[in-house]
Amino acid sequence: MGTFFKVKTSEEVIEILNQFAPLGEETIPLGYSLGRVLSRNITSPQDLPDFLRSAMDGYAVRARDTFGASESLPALVEVHGEVLMGEVPQMVVREGSAVKISTGGMLPEGADGVVMKEYCELLDETTLEIGRAISPLENVIQPGDDFKEGVTVLKKGHRLRPQDLGVMAGLGISKLPVHRKPKVALISTGDEVVPIEEQPRPGQVRDINRYTLGAFCQQVGAEPFHMGLCPDDFEFLKSMVEDALMRADTVWISGGSSVGARDLTLKVFETLPGFELLAHGISISPGKPTIIGTAGSKPIIGLPGQVASALVVAEVFLTRLISRLSGHAGPSNRSYAEVEAVLSRNIESASGREDYIRVRLVDKGEALIATPVYGKSGLISPLVESQGLVKVDINTEGLYEGQTVRVMLFSPINGGGR
Amino acid sequence: MGTFFKVKTSEEVIEILNQFAPLGEETIPLGYSLGRVLSRNITSPQDLPDFLRSAMDGYAVRARDTFGASESLPALVEVHGEVLMGEVPQMVVREGSAVKISTGGMLPEGADGVVMKEYCELLDETTLEIGRAISPLENVIQPGDDFKEGVTVLKKGHRLRPQDLGVMAGLGISKLPVHRKPKVALISTGDEVVPIEEQPRPGQVRDINRYTLGAFCQQVGAEPFHMGLCPDDFEFLKSMVEDALMRADTVWISGGSSVGARDLTLKVFETLPGFELLAHGISISPGKPTIIGTAGSKPIIGLPGQVASALVVAEVFLTRLISRLSGHAGPSNRSYAEVEAVLSRNIESASGREDYIRVRLVDKGEALIATPVYGKSGLISPLVESQGLVKVDINTEGLYEGQTVRVMLFSPINGGGR
Repeated sequence: MGTFFKVKTSEEVIEILNQFAPLGEETIPLGYSLGRVLSRNITSPQDLPDFLRSAMDGYAVRARDTFGASESLPALVEVHGEVLMGEVPQMVVREGSAVKISTGGMLPEGADGVVMKEYCELLDETTLEIGRAISPLENVIQPGDDFKEGVTVLKKGHRLRPQDLGVMAGLGISKLPVHRKPKVALISTGDEVVPIEEQPRPGQVRDINRYTLGAFCQQVGAEPFHMGLCPDDFEFLKSMVEDALMRADTVWISGGSSVGARDLTLKVFETLPGFELLAHGISISPGKPTIIGTAGSKPIIGLPGQVASALVVAEVFLTRLISRLSGHAGPSNRSYAEVEAVLSRNIESASGREDYIRVRLVDKGEALIATPVYGKSGLISPLVESQGLVKVDINTEGLYEGQTVRVMLFSPINGGGR
Repeated sequence: MGTFFKVKTSEEVIEILNQFAPLGEETIPLGYSLGRVLSRNITSPQDLPDFLRSAMDGYAVRARDTFGASESLPALVEVHGEVLMGEVPQMVVREGSAVKISTGGMLPEGADGVVMKEYCELLDETTLEIGRAISPLENVIQPGDDFKEGVTVLKKGHRLRPQDLGVMAGLGISKLPVHRKPKVALISTGDEVVPIEEQPRPGQVRDINRYTLGAFCQQVGAEPFHMGLCPDDFEFLKSMVEDALMRADTVWISGGSSVGARDLTLKVFETLPGFELLAHGISISPGKPTIIGTAGSKPIIGLPGQVASALVVAEVFLTRLISRLSGHAGPSNRSYAEVEAVLSRNIESASGREDYIRVRLVDKGEALIATPVYGKSGLISPLVESQGLVKVDINTEGLYEGQTVRVMLFSPINGGGR
């Protein structure tokens, strides 16, 4: 493989990630499909609705019986019963007659429209005054108005939302073909790292990345799989990565933070059958010492050991990787997890690399104010104090106080704000 | 209770919902806490880090040995070994000496700073040239720099993100006190509604709301609990609601779409011990025929039968209810699930009610374009064709083509866009 210079820009990395193919498909029950991505177009197996239905509460009539009716000159018709919900009405609406009907009720034979109850008044038990004319098919839903048999309802690559599940239910589609959920094997390396249940001795630290990256995976629709801790040992790491590749769709190694440990990851990758190095370093800060490769067709990632750097790489690039493996069409260049905010101070940045600055957001009514949260490299406290990242483009030397910027939000899940 | 007029505005409903108390607490393992809401402040049980640590790859030195050093006049020191990751270094850095160290390594006794390796050059195996002066404590992280023992790390009411889990891991906090996840009992009513596995006869429809509202609950961090279908029958519905109240934290009844069925829900509510009617109708469209009440301390909700209306009520109000029951502090008035977009055409609206218009979003590069998706009341296809809702305020008569509006997004979960 060699160690030739493979530092990539952020755009190049996105290009690289876009080349990974979506995972295979599986069929799952509708009730478990929220957030999953369709692997095939879904076509309507029937007309929906499949019967002529009232869209209002009122009276089913022959529209022509109302022609010319107005408040001052109402039409008079005779009421013959009521449509029961869920039943096929047995009566027929003949000239000069009407049948009471609720929203969703099936129109009786002979009726071709519904007068809203607000325009009707019962004079006695059966005599109805109609104060407004309707045109044929007014206030009714015709067969196929929602979907005609055979039309595409949802497209391959669509991520399923609650209303999409509702429409599938309406069509009686109780199982759906979706792409498999990406299984991510996580390995934390570093002689200094201990499980969180252990009391670290001086010089040791707890395994922060396992929890951060595991939760990140959950958040973006992947299934994390913890391989465990790995010391800075070539053979140990090699066998753990080989094992991980058999059990997962992608392998992410984080750490260790020492120089030797970083070299180890690449050395192990280079022993894997079919390994190709796609990026060795990304021109962003933080997150530069990131390795992206492929073993056969599976993406393998070496992440920085510092959790603050690893999380930036995850947010900026691995969201895209998971989206890609999940078969999600798009994604749009515009992220939906962004807000606009006004900078509270200047941000300096070196040209030639893309910077991601953590910011704290405060809602000042008229605008959101974004304040950079700085801190020594290696600290984790700035991460909990910030709500998102501001990108400083590679060719920009900084951003100015008062400038409106886009903030990539650390995903607020489960109804964060509203 | 009576049937006096209790139509509320959207603001009044939010006020009502804000009065529901958060659910009780439980203790859960860290790995399962993503998206959950803390029920207590979390304080740091220790200084983090608890040892003096290098923030860079380089050499640990006594800062004063570098004073005056520059590229043209470097300082010379003697290297005495290397700090091993995770180990307490046994050597002492004396005057004129240095020890190799990696990021995260523990500083040896005597050293009070780290020179980055970029400013150092080994002249032979032990002689190191330092081309830059450092000040004491430069490039090191001191004990407590992240968190001092006893400080508040995360506050009660905070919803946990991946980085928060990471920080908890760093502090060795493996279990967390959180509010219980709201359990929502869902009941679909209507004589015309059949389970999706059944072939509806003419006049019948499948149970769309169960899947839409169930998925909505999952999306906003609640646990849906399906009570099943209920015919339009007072006794049947009453016993189902009573059962639901024993098993869940809140009960949501949707449908039926007929007039009688809507009255039924309120009649059943009125029989419940401690029932109080808080809203009977909301001045919004769609979604007006919504009932909000409380049975004892548990919120009970009657939703419109039309799924399009029910989902608007859920997005606009029930997200807030779940947030409230979950103990989430805030929420901010500014929703993070919003984008700005430019209207592609005029939207007319009646004054005196708040309208929620479904829109389709298209990214035109410079701006997102929002196009209203209209359709007869009762259709479900407009829901799958749209990405969000535009609110038309109660005192506004409409919005204009070209106007910039905020679009409340149908929550894109699992890394929708980026």
